[in-house]
Amino acid sequence: MAKADRFLKACKMELPDCTPVWLMRQAGRYMEEYRRLRERHTFKEMCQTPELAVEVTLQPVRRFDLDAAIIFSDILLPLEKMGVGLRYSDAEGPLLDRPIQTNDDIDALGPVDPEEDLPYVLKAIELTRAELDGAIPLIGFSGGPFTLASYLLEGGGSKYYRLTKGFMYTDATAFDLLMEKLTDMVVDYLNAQIRHGAQAIQVFDSWVGILSAADYERYVMGHMKRLFASLDRSVPSIHFGVDTCHLLPLMSDAGGDVIGVDWRVPIDQARESMGRSCAIQGNLDPAALFGPMRHVQEQVREVLRRVGGAPGHIFNLGHGVMPGTPVENVDVLVREVHEYGAGA
Amino acid sequence: MAKADRFLKACKMELPDCTPVWLMRQAGRYMEEYRRLRERHTFKEMCQTPELAVEVTLQPVRRFDLDAAIIFSDILLPLEKMGVGLRYSDAEGPLLDRPIQTNDDIDALGPVDPEEDLPYVLKAIELTRAELDGAIPLIGFSGGPFTLASYLLEGGGSKYYRLTKGFMYTDATAFDLLMEKLTDMVVDYLNAQIRHGAQAIQVFDSWVGILSAADYERYVMGHMKRLFASLDRSVPSIHFGVDTCHLLPLMSDAGGDVIGVDWRVPIDQARESMGRSCAIQGNLDPAALFGPMRHVQEQVREVLRRVGGAPGHIFNLGHGVMPGTPVENVDVLVREVHEYGAGA
Repeated sequence: MAKADRFLKACKMELPDCTPVWLMRQAGRYMEEYRRLRERHTFKEMCQTPELAVEVTLQPVRRFDLDAAIIFSDILLPLEKMGVGLRYSDAEGPLLDRPIQTNDDIDALGPVDPEEDLPYVLKAIELTRAELDGAIPLIGFSGGPFTLASYLLEGGGSKYYRLTKGFMYTDATAFDLLMEKLTDMVVDYLNAQIRHGAQAIQVFDSWVGILSAADYERYVMGHMKRLFASLDRSVPSIHFGVDTCHLLPLMSDAGGDVIGVDWRVPIDQARESMGRSCAIQGNLDPAALFGPMRHVQEQVREVLRRVGGAPGHIFNLGHGVMPGTPVENVDVLVREVHEYGAGA
Repeated sequence: MAKADRFLKACKMELPDCTPVWLMRQAGRYMEEYRRLRERHTFKEMCQTPELAVEVTLQPVRRFDLDAAIIFSDILLPLEKMGVGLRYSDAEGPLLDRPIQTNDDIDALGPVDPEEDLPYVLKAIELTRAELDGAIPLIGFSGGPFTLASYLLEGGGSKYYRLTKGFMYTDATAFDLLMEKLTDMVVDYLNAQIRHGAQAIQVFDSWVGILSAADYERYVMGHMKRLFASLDRSVPSIHFGVDTCHLLPLMSDAGGDVIGVDWRVPIDQARESMGRSCAIQGNLDPAALFGPMRHVQEQVREVLRRVGGAPGHIFNLGHGVMPGTPVENVDVLVREVHEYGAGA
């Protein structure tokens, strides 16, 4: 059962039989199987119907030789239960009907009870675990508090995060309360996922890289420390953000057994820049998969060469698989990691 | 005439009477004067009518105590003359009717003669110089070749630069030819601006930060070296990109008398990470201007404190002034730099 242990061994800085690989957004629009299902269901339905979420979770696992599954879900689903009105627009992505504008809006945010409010996620985890039957581990996840706060304040995706930063700079106390509420929610949500069978969890603090290092330290880091300190320690945690070259020392201080990095910084330099020895996840540019097969192979080997066989490496992209990614290149990537990755 | 010399002295690593300040996109939608003019003219008209471009260039100079003007123009205007069809959509930003899709499209890109094809920019520079009458220097600018290439390949702005990177990885030779053509164009264009009176130039390689360090080195850096080596050396050059924490050593190697940095990295660390001693421009988060006045003051002083009075600092934002920025905060920023900035 070497394959079943690869991912979890790497999380613990042990050397598995070969480098484990999974891909952020490994289930998604680039796969025909997904698109076929999506034609008949909305995105939300697919997330909120356990049987569909299980099916989508397993699609990439059937097709590629992946070493971990990640539950199919979305980081914004818990926000719906806080009363802000969540829709997914095909054209504009996620939209909130009632974004946060005042302190009162923050006070009014309802608490989230994962068992009560997100039973479909927990059920999907249980069902997926049963289906996987120990073949590979299952990862649960949540958005990071800052990333969730940015959606709550912007009302959707954003380019410059004006409203988020404006609010943060104008009323640091109210922003802090918002972060506290979200941190509580994330801790409860992740611990519930672990109780229901998640064998590792990832915190997607995807947009935290838009903050300066000083702002991260001032407004976010304390909450992240509390988050990681409050997680059930029986499973490993992965701490990921995009565009975090300037934040890696702070993020690794804040917590996580594994730090996930994007493609910008060479993975060996990213590792060096962290203040402590921990596992690392990454970091091929997802756009590399739009090159020819030879390019994918070269780039996979370059990441592995930089890691140099050191223990505690989980191969992944630097961000999610993009729509339109050629499926055959994903297959090449996974094979190449297993062939050239280090092993005990 | 201490004020007239501040900016150029700082570019040369000399110590002026106090820290000079100008702001990227200091002319723009956040100013009522601009919006009034914009109601009566399209964006393109404003760029292509020298009298209007002069007026917009001078609007922020009249309103704030700025130490440099930058000609009102747009980095994409030269592309129009390459035959790709350029439109500015109010909703979607710049759009190209005929983005590059094949090698043939690259071969077909017409040459640009700045005197012939962009006379309105050169004329606006001459007229602005006359209006400024030596009070403060005038900066000319161009997009960087990679940033321009990304617009040519994506057909507009982009989030993930799939098409750009896909093309680059698939046909490195064709991409190289495109970069060569664009570099030639940028050199001719900037040298023409200098001939017509620009007293400094800035290369906005705004989106180059989406590349990994390895890709920058492989696909972009050589062209940037040639670009800076081919510029008229009688005026200083500023080399700017957003999100370049991981690229600063390479970008500073490539060239520029001044390296412009965004807000993510503390400015002293950014300076240390460069391989050579050069002037630095930046780096207040443009979103800081959405905080209260007190926050703006604190943050300006924090940047100045980090620079610590070392010569060769031009105060600027880490990216352009954003629409909706409170005008009074821009005023506070400029005053604060002059009051607390270092001086001989």
